[in-house]
Amino acid sequence: MIKKIGERTLTFTEKPRIIGFGSAVGKKEGEGPLAKWFDKIYNDTTMGGETWEKAEASLQKKAVLLAFESAGVQQSDIDAVFAGDLLNQCISSSYGLRDLGIPFLGQYGACSTMAQTLAVASIFVESGAADIAAAVTSSHFCSAERQFRYPLQYGGQRAPTAQWTVTGAGSAIVASLENGEFKSQNEKLIETNGNLKKQTGVSDVCIGKIVDMGITDANNMGAAMAGAAADTIYRYLTDTNTSPDDYDMIVTGDLGRIGTSLLYELLKKEGIDIEKKHNDCGLLIFDCESQEVCSGGSGCGCSASVLCSYILKRMRKREINSVLFAATGALMSPTIVQQGESIPGIAHLIHLVNVNDR
Amino acid sequence: MIKKIGERTLTFTEKPRIIGFGSAVGKKEGEGPLAKWFDKIYNDTTMGGETWEKAEASLQKKAVLLAFESAGVQQSDIDAVFAGDLLNQCISSSYGLRDLGIPFLGQYGACSTMAQTLAVASIFVESGAADIAAAVTSSHFCSAERQFRYPLQYGGQRAPTAQWTVTGAGSAIVASLENGEFKSQNEKLIETNGNLKKQTGVSDVCIGKIVDMGITDANNMGAAMAGAAADTIYRYLTDTNTSPDDYDMIVTGDLGRIGTSLLYELLKKEGIDIEKKHNDCGLLIFDCESQEVCSGGSGCGCSASVLCSYILKRMRKREINSVLFAATGALMSPTIVQQGESIPGIAHLIHLVNVNDR
Repeated sequence: MIKKIGERTLTFTEKPRIIGFGSAVGKKEGEGPLAKWFDKIYNDTTMGGETWEKAEASLQKKAVLLAFESAGVQQSDIDAVFAGDLLNQCISSSYGLRDLGIPFLGQYGACSTMAQTLAVASIFVESGAADIAAAVTSSHFCSAERQFRYPLQYGGQRAPTAQWTVTGAGSAIVASLENGEFKSQNEKLIETNGNLKKQTGVSDVCIGKIVDMGITDANNMGAAMAGAAADTIYRYLTDTNTSPDDYDMIVTGDLGRIGTSLLYELLKKEGIDIEKKHNDCGLLIFDCESQEVCSGGSGCGCSASVLCSYILKRMRKREINSVLFAATGALMSPTIVQQGESIPGIAHLIHLVNVNDR
Repeated sequence: MIKKIGERTLTFTEKPRIIGFGSAVGKKEGEGPLAKWFDKIYNDTTMGGETWEKAEASLQKKAVLLAFESAGVQQSDIDAVFAGDLLNQCISSSYGLRDLGIPFLGQYGACSTMAQTLAVASIFVESGAADIAAAVTSSHFCSAERQFRYPLQYGGQRAPTAQWTVTGAGSAIVASLENGEFKSQNEKLIETNGNLKKQTGVSDVCIGKIVDMGITDANNMGAAMAGAAADTIYRYLTDTNTSPDDYDMIVTGDLGRIGTSLLYELLKKEGIDIEKKHNDCGLLIFDCESQEVCSGGSGCGCSASVLCSYILKRMRKREINSVLFAATGALMSPTIVQQGESIPGIAHLIHLVNVNDR
């Protein structure tokens, strides 16, 4: 059952379980600090495709297939897939998933897409609209650079505030329970996931509002998103009457260095200090100095690949048991930024918990 | 409560009620056969904006505000808004709704977006994830032409299969019931909508799969979408064990002339004849001959503005009482079509009913 707490937090009594997940990344990400956590590292950034867009579509499909495998399900078991990405008309999602024959609901939340797809998938599953649902997103450095900034061949210099779009994808599979048992009668799923003790569940979600900080510099996306992250985290902590100390980890999507320090500043004004518990997927995935990525990683695939590897694997190992995952998105389009508009941000939050043995 | 029937139809026991709706269109649409049904007709296609993108954002906001007014609600009453459009990064939605401060979940379903946003809003409302939710989408001839085809100034000749992107937006507000009473305690809402007899409800939805007919001609979107429309309509009728005769109207989004005849052909192969009950929003909104729109209207705003005026107003008058609304989308992006890819289609279906007096 879904209940509303406070202004905009939704809590799930059955806690939909994340029964499987998968991550696939590019070469640079595979050379970073999280290398050992990823399921698949491509050394060829084209992923065997003819174009960057087709490469990204393959990457997204790979993450979904890895997640299916880890969950012990097949595409025919999935009632709905929630997918989106940064490319115009979300083509990595539609072309990547086109052949799977799964009911498809395209989502657009820019780099907040992993939290958005997982939130909506969890709501579908908790409500009975789906027994098993998939959430997936991706980004690719080369397809994003040429669409949002300059052609790669131009060799443009990067601003110190700029972030590096992650070549990566992540997918999670969510399944519904009824009285502590999986609703789906799929034998393979029950065999793979029978021991519910192992499972991480989605406990609550907080849907974000659009927050515009007035940033017009497309090379400073962290700053554009910090206000939305602060708004959603503040709202969630207030709605649930909890403090950062109640969680093992609070992780944002891709604020990078500059966005992160702005987030701390904004929350401190509200009397909230998350610094000891906070990390940012954009700062986890790269070593900013040695990998020369300026302010950190970004892109839908940044928080997706970090969630669906490092975070969820550490949760399965019970190294961490209660995590706030707040993916952040800059709803930026070159067309309208060139028209002088500022860049609005959004952040959706998911509270993941290891469900107690039952 | 949400129950699954057959393979992929979801049925709602409480039937979320459409408590308000609004439509806003451009000059050409205001000269067409449905003129008298629209709430707002702009004679200035810029809607007072400096650019076509900003014009479309204003149009979308206008439709939402008209829907709020008709429902007797304010932006602060809305728990979530589901919005999307055709523009890169869905900027009409994010910029149009940026100032409203409503939890925002961007949707991407190309021209199927009205059915998608209404389906997801209904699922949120029926499940308790929202008491009141809004669904909205838009399109604009001028922003779409320059993004998907040619700059207007180029004056390119139109293919006979081409459709004309509707300048229009539509929005619907959905509210949840519990034991026949509105969950929301909002006085204005209850005053405006107290008489549930007047209300149209969402009875069931069928979420579409991506269907690719192998069409590579970006001037023949109707054909690209016909397969998806046939798949979803066939699936819904099979899941519910009903026939076209059980409905007062079966309306597709924007198949236009060519897509419509293909749809008839595909369904006839399955032994289903919808011709007597069928209409297409793209054929309703324009007079193809006198308005010189080739194969009919298209765009997210086509089915949105027709649903949120002509169809829902006729339902309120009880001229029609049971309607299948299947909006159709071509998940097309110029980038990937130029790379030789075919155009996948998708269609989501909503069954709208006038709830019996209770």
